[in-house]
Amino acid sequence: MIDWLTKIRDKPSRMVIGLMSGTSADQVDACLCEITGFGLDTRARVVHLASVDYPERVRHLLTHRIGSLTVEEVARLNFLIAQVFAQGVLKCIQQANYRPSQIDFIASHGQTLAHYPEADNDCLPVPATLQVGDISLIAQLTGIVTIGDFRPADMAQGGQGAPLVPYADLVLFRDSSIGRVVQNIGGIANLTYLPPGCTPEQVVAFDTGPGNMVIDAIVDKLTQGRQTMDMDGKLALSGTVNQEFLSWLMSHEYFAKPPPKSTGREEFGVQYAAQILEQYAQFTKKSGATWDPAVHLEDIVATVSELTVRSIVEAYKSWILPKGPIHQVILGGGGARNPYLVSRLEQELSEFSPGIQVLTHQHFGISDKAKEALAFAILGNQFVGGMANNVPAATGASRSVIMGKLALPW
Amino acid sequence: MIDWLTKIRDKPSRMVIGLMSGTSADQVDACLCEITGFGLDTRARVVHLASVDYPERVRHLLTHRIGSLTVEEVARLNFLIAQVFAQGVLKCIQQANYRPSQIDFIASHGQTLAHYPEADNDCLPVPATLQVGDISLIAQLTGIVTIGDFRPADMAQGGQGAPLVPYADLVLFRDSSIGRVVQNIGGIANLTYLPPGCTPEQVVAFDTGPGNMVIDAIVDKLTQGRQTMDMDGKLALSGTVNQEFLSWLMSHEYFAKPPPKSTGREEFGVQYAAQILEQYAQFTKKSGATWDPAVHLEDIVATVSELTVRSIVEAYKSWILPKGPIHQVILGGGGARNPYLVSRLEQELSEFSPGIQVLTHQHFGISDKAKEALAFAILGNQFVGGMANNVPAATGASRSVIMGKLALPW
Repeated sequence: MIDWLTKIRDKPSRMVIGLMSGTSADQVDACLCEITGFGLDTRARVVHLASVDYPERVRHLLTHRIGSLTVEEVARLNFLIAQVFAQGVLKCIQQANYRPSQIDFIASHGQTLAHYPEADNDCLPVPATLQVGDISLIAQLTGIVTIGDFRPADMAQGGQGAPLVPYADLVLFRDSSIGRVVQNIGGIANLTYLPPGCTPEQVVAFDTGPGNMVIDAIVDKLTQGRQTMDMDGKLALSGTVNQEFLSWLMSHEYFAKPPPKSTGREEFGVQYAAQILEQYAQFTKKSGATWDPAVHLEDIVATVSELTVRSIVEAYKSWILPKGPIHQVILGGGGARNPYLVSRLEQELSEFSPGIQVLTHQHFGISDKAKEALAFAILGNQFVGGMANNVPAATGASRSVIMGKLALPW
Repeated sequence: MIDWLTKIRDKPSRMVIGLMSGTSADQVDACLCEITGFGLDTRARVVHLASVDYPERVRHLLTHRIGSLTVEEVARLNFLIAQVFAQGVLKCIQQANYRPSQIDFIASHGQTLAHYPEADNDCLPVPATLQVGDISLIAQLTGIVTIGDFRPADMAQGGQGAPLVPYADLVLFRDSSIGRVVQNIGGIANLTYLPPGCTPEQVVAFDTGPGNMVIDAIVDKLTQGRQTMDMDGKLALSGTVNQEFLSWLMSHEYFAKPPPKSTGREEFGVQYAAQILEQYAQFTKKSGATWDPAVHLEDIVATVSELTVRSIVEAYKSWILPKGPIHQVILGGGGARNPYLVSRLEQELSEFSPGIQVLTHQHFGISDKAKEALAFAILGNQFVGGMANNVPAATGASRSVIMGKLALPW
């Protein structure tokens, strides 16, 4: 192991496979990356991305039964998911025309089965998180050293075990003179702010609020499932924002809360979308107009899309600009492919910060889909370098730690 | 990490804390050991043993609810049990008058929540095992590098992930000219046979059959709970073995099965004890005598105690002596403190192997209670030395592997 670590550390560049599967549990992403350096000197590029699907029965358990899994199912999922992750690794290596022996290590996020950052359980009053996809199995099945299970170490030091991507944002996007916001617009929108020449302690990371989840839920509801999202922002682009209703939406208490803060589908999910529709109908009636969901579809979608834009922009004004300048915003996630969101963000941002550039991950050679798997490859690279890989300012941990566990293939 | 590994490897001796908690889940044993060397050159001595109790609510979950634990309970138990393990470590260090900085690493078995060596599940057809007590937490809470979660790597190579103690038996008790059986008499009786000068491939390890579990269950049942075990073998020593009934007991198909084999409470537990009582009553009536459990208590206990003795002795004759000589038997487990079992074993063994010595772990300076925790310290020592630590001949794995995962405290 010492020889292996020494060899890996001293290589000019390391070939790493990052493994990620999100809570949607549709597939596992395996991203072959080339990484040089450690810490703030880390440089990384994506070589190849491959994905494998979960078997249908596994996907069903993860999406429909996740809260009621038995201990036997947890134990067996830990092994079965490791097999799927190993398949993803081998598929990625083969497609990229590499051999397993050319891969230095694997870094796996695992599949989250449970995440309880608070000790809010009477019988077992302790925070906890549970990612499965056993790293000993991945290592033995692929013949490659595997690092994974990053979150518990941060939680051991009082952190939330999340978000973990800001560390990767720090090493990928930190610049000595450019202030950058890495803005992800997924179901929920979250950001990492990197002031010019920042240290890890100066990183700001939090959820800004709703991303696509509310928009998607409203489109799905009003079209009765005929559309499940606002493809290319077409609905929003042809609608008119109801400014009065938007003001009401922006009065949600989450937006006024100072970071660090995080939110989820409990706060900005399907239920919130249903509340919005109800309130919108009342607003319409109060103004004397006739309420017809079909007629108002575009306007409502424009208004909730604007909510995503405005909550992001207000977050910058309230919590970031007091801390430093923003020269570039790097968009990611599904929202980065929604022309309404992108053009409105550009417009709003240029108003208070002329010359601000709105870019995408692709601009930096990172495919949006590969981003999270790449982030975990970077966390694993820190582990083999014996260097901390959490951002306490983002997770709330009392100190920086070397997150992760190591398993050997020999 | 490289510096740490190099320092640890090159130390003349390593101070290691082994952590063990068995399926009875009453308490966690933390054993401070001094270990020198690696592989067959390993030498180990117990410095101090400390135990901590589980909180009552945890013990209840582990003993009464283990099969129906929810995913939330599994996740939170993983963290809470790690806290208890960390307490055990710190208590052991303090009692032994050491400082945490003097401990080189921790090696933890964890607490088994599930063990399914077969892929006998329709939905998730994969073998699995689940030990909790997160090693990242133990490492962070104690400030000491922690290795643990040994079983999955062996199972990844087709092994049963058990038994793991034979590797420790090999390095502790292998002798160039003495053939040894390490005979554990716990609830179930199991052995490790080490032929003179054996290689790991020549180790034989299997469960011989019932240990104390059947004896305890019968005493408990017939005394209606007034006694829960045959203290000092007093009941057996004052009873008379029913030879005819014993012959019937010895006809159980498990004893005729060649190793590798393993058994458990499903086969030789409370249910089996109830069957024995029923059959014994029938045997008694058939012979014309009157069946009275109180009158027959000593005789039944003598007969089932003799079953433990005879099944062990027959196992030696059938499966060990054809492979090599037995010069010493090293007894361990609760049964090693039962004078009936010990004296009868000595008597039986001397008949077919004159001059055979029956010893205990204490004879080798190892307290019986510390044995398993010491065994895992030795497995962890192999991990940091980058050396295999399973016994494929015992687990059925296709090859030897370096079992375990590593977590850092920094």
